[in-house]
Amino acid sequence: MAYDYGTIVIGGGPGGLAAAYGLAAKQKVLVVENDLWGGTCPNYGCDPKKMLYRGVEVKNAALRMNGFGISGTAKIDWPSLMAFKRSYTTGVPAGTLNGLTHAGITTLYGHAQLLGEHAVKVGSQNVTGEHIVIATGHTPRYPDIPGANLLKTSRDFLDLDQLPTSIAFIGAGYVSVELVNIAAAAGAEVHIIGHSDRLLRAFPKVATEALKPLLAKTGIHFHPNVKLTKITPLGTMTHLHADNFDLNVDMAITAMGRIANVADLGLANAGIKADTRGIPVDDHLRTAVETIYAIGDVNLKPQPKLTPVAGFEGSYVAEQILGDPTPITYPAIPNIVFGPTELAKVGVSLETAEAAPDQYTVKHNGTTHWYTYNRIQDPDAQVWTIVDKKTGRLAGAVVLASLAEDLINTFAAAIDAGEKPSDLNKIYAYPSAQSDLQYLF
Amino acid sequence: MAYDYGTIVIGGGPGGLAAAYGLAAKQKVLVVENDLWGGTCPNYGCDPKKMLYRGVEVKNAALRMNGFGISGTAKIDWPSLMAFKRSYTTGVPAGTLNGLTHAGITTLYGHAQLLGEHAVKVGSQNVTGEHIVIATGHTPRYPDIPGANLLKTSRDFLDLDQLPTSIAFIGAGYVSVELVNIAAAAGAEVHIIGHSDRLLRAFPKVATEALKPLLAKTGIHFHPNVKLTKITPLGTMTHLHADNFDLNVDMAITAMGRIANVADLGLANAGIKADTRGIPVDDHLRTAVETIYAIGDVNLKPQPKLTPVAGFEGSYVAEQILGDPTPITYPAIPNIVFGPTELAKVGVSLETAEAAPDQYTVKHNGTTHWYTYNRIQDPDAQVWTIVDKKTGRLAGAVVLASLAEDLINTFAAAIDAGEKPSDLNKIYAYPSAQSDLQYLF
Repeated sequence: MAYDYGTIVIGGGPGGLAAAYGLAAKQKVLVVENDLWGGTCPNYGCDPKKMLYRGVEVKNAALRMNGFGISGTAKIDWPSLMAFKRSYTTGVPAGTLNGLTHAGITTLYGHAQLLGEHAVKVGSQNVTGEHIVIATGHTPRYPDIPGANLLKTSRDFLDLDQLPTSIAFIGAGYVSVELVNIAAAAGAEVHIIGHSDRLLRAFPKVATEALKPLLAKTGIHFHPNVKLTKITPLGTMTHLHADNFDLNVDMAITAMGRIANVADLGLANAGIKADTRGIPVDDHLRTAVETIYAIGDVNLKPQPKLTPVAGFEGSYVAEQILGDPTPITYPAIPNIVFGPTELAKVGVSLETAEAAPDQYTVKHNGTTHWYTYNRIQDPDAQVWTIVDKKTGRLAGAVVLASLAEDLINTFAAAIDAGEKPSDLNKIYAYPSAQSDLQYLF
Repeated sequence: MAYDYGTIVIGGGPGGLAAAYGLAAKQKVLVVENDLWGGTCPNYGCDPKKMLYRGVEVKNAALRMNGFGISGTAKIDWPSLMAFKRSYTTGVPAGTLNGLTHAGITTLYGHAQLLGEHAVKVGSQNVTGEHIVIATGHTPRYPDIPGANLLKTSRDFLDLDQLPTSIAFIGAGYVSVELVNIAAAAGAEVHIIGHSDRLLRAFPKVATEALKPLLAKTGIHFHPNVKLTKITPLGTMTHLHADNFDLNVDMAITAMGRIANVADLGLANAGIKADTRGIPVDDHLRTAVETIYAIGDVNLKPQPKLTPVAGFEGSYVAEQILGDPTPITYPAIPNIVFGPTELAKVGVSLETAEAAPDQYTVKHNGTTHWYTYNRIQDPDAQVWTIVDKKTGRLAGAVVLASLAEDLINTFAAAIDAGEKPSDLNKIYAYPSAQSDLQYLF
């Protein structure tokens, strides 16, 4: 039986694109997108977020050095910062589409619904593929309370013409921590409405507790243990209500986590069961149906839902479809939050390590006195390392500090290479964040 | 025969200290220093240099983002920047001495002279050691022309209470490029007096030529092909003279390279021949005399004269003295200059690669459009990669860009791990400088 395409990819984000590009040289590929080409990350996710974060980095760097060689101030100008962000995002959809076309990949704009194991309906058009890759990603979760429709999302925040005077973020995960930090640095009054007293559940508590005073220092109000019961309009403002809690803000944003984009996908037509947590897949990222894969945010794999993970899974699935039978194995996955400082982790978690003292050695290092952290005047730098007692190898790390991105990438490479802590004492560019690793061991 | 010490280390800089600490647990060790404990790097070299450079980084970061989200200015205040540097350097000698004492290492302050294969005179005191490690480092070279005694050195520059209105640096190596950049950013009128038309001979010409317009943009005057013939005082100023060249500046600094500290070391007493290029050593860092080693800047090894190389050699020599017979092999050595942008290299040089097109593939990448370089508005970012054609492995890299330190460390690790370019397409913290490496291949 002949199909229209070798593979139909549903979703033109980082996962779907990696799959499509991995296949394009070998077969006819179709990519279907019903929103912005390029998906969440480059259009209204990690990429624009870090464009805005540049303003925070520069402002804070100058502030920290004030009186230590620098005078004057660097202030954030929101409309200018937003224009800067847009200079990046504006071209993403057309650029993505252009890239696909140049690679000979067919594209269709519209909502895709599975019709069966090989068939997809896009708008009014039916297409068939030998394989189908679902890469529809995540979407923000809304609270199930009256007035939830009044809430905005991170996508709205990342494209605000003017910064509201006051903003509340409902939820205390990475979306909330990253965006409140930007909003506060830009001069807004900001609030985090936490369901419990925890910030960033995916990160170790000792580090997230250390983050709380840094949020407070930035002027961010964290309201723990608030179970909102209703949201109502109040003139141009929004009123948030819970028992013993009332807050009026100019804008309220839902940041309660993200749910899998599985609604209206027609999964049942193909015999796939899934809920908003994601689509179950096996070790080959295959759904219950052999011809259909699910990759990136939308699948139910326990790996962190990150852009490079989606890309990795996309490239992997392309190889699978082209005949490689190897089950997926993931390298060490660095996970980072760009907040009042950077919080990053990789490998075995601190909780796992601390619960198994026979197996792991955990070492905590205050690193504010390290050459580089002194040089950039970071008063709150900490690094945890986790070593496997049996092998002596580095098993995990947590960095709560500026430049965490660079250190965590170095730790990740060391974990993948099976290195011991002492192996990290290499010859690095000197001085650099990495050359300070000599103080670690 | 019994010696006073297992090892006598002459020179308390990064090389000598690494040797001493590597030996301290196993034998009696003496370290002799005749200047500041800690040596050049932490007292008046790379460490204070990069402390001052922080002012440049912050100023430039704010300047680049001006109109792209940031308003206001961050200016360098020289006395405040110098106070910041001193907050780091002031404690170095005492801290170093304290560390040595705590490790049970004996210290002697004074000028050391070899008396023989096992004997050293320090001031009026004679001491003996089974082994001797010479780690006396480098010192600035002066031009051999009348008035050379009027010149200051990098050490003077790095401790200036007030920034002179105009400064000339004689020489166009890394000391000159790094310090003119700091001086210019802080508001001085600065000149580089080049003996030829080349900047930074140790770096590839294509990259150093690209650096020239960046120096000019910073307001730095580069005078190529000037052979100074005399230097004379002119009131409070200094007059530099060559045929067809005259320049008056408030301060003139010699930055013509550095020479080995071998004078008055009594090398001949032990039967060691050396000149100002350095002390010849074998593959075990042993001099012509079996009991005497030379490490770091002072030896004649072709490796770049860098702090981490000295430290590596110090640790290596300690192992040698303790009985390890392995000849020295060096890992990939990243070498970096912090100028108007960062210029870094590692591995096989660009010149070597371009001269052997059968053996190497060189790829040039304009990287200004990379996510991170766009995000931080670096308009002048370039990366060269060198791949070994036979093995397909990364053999070398050159980075001319902000954050070169992070990228070159990543490239160095990849070279040491024998990785191919495609192996660099890992899962990194996203977005980060390293996650942009996906665009490279």
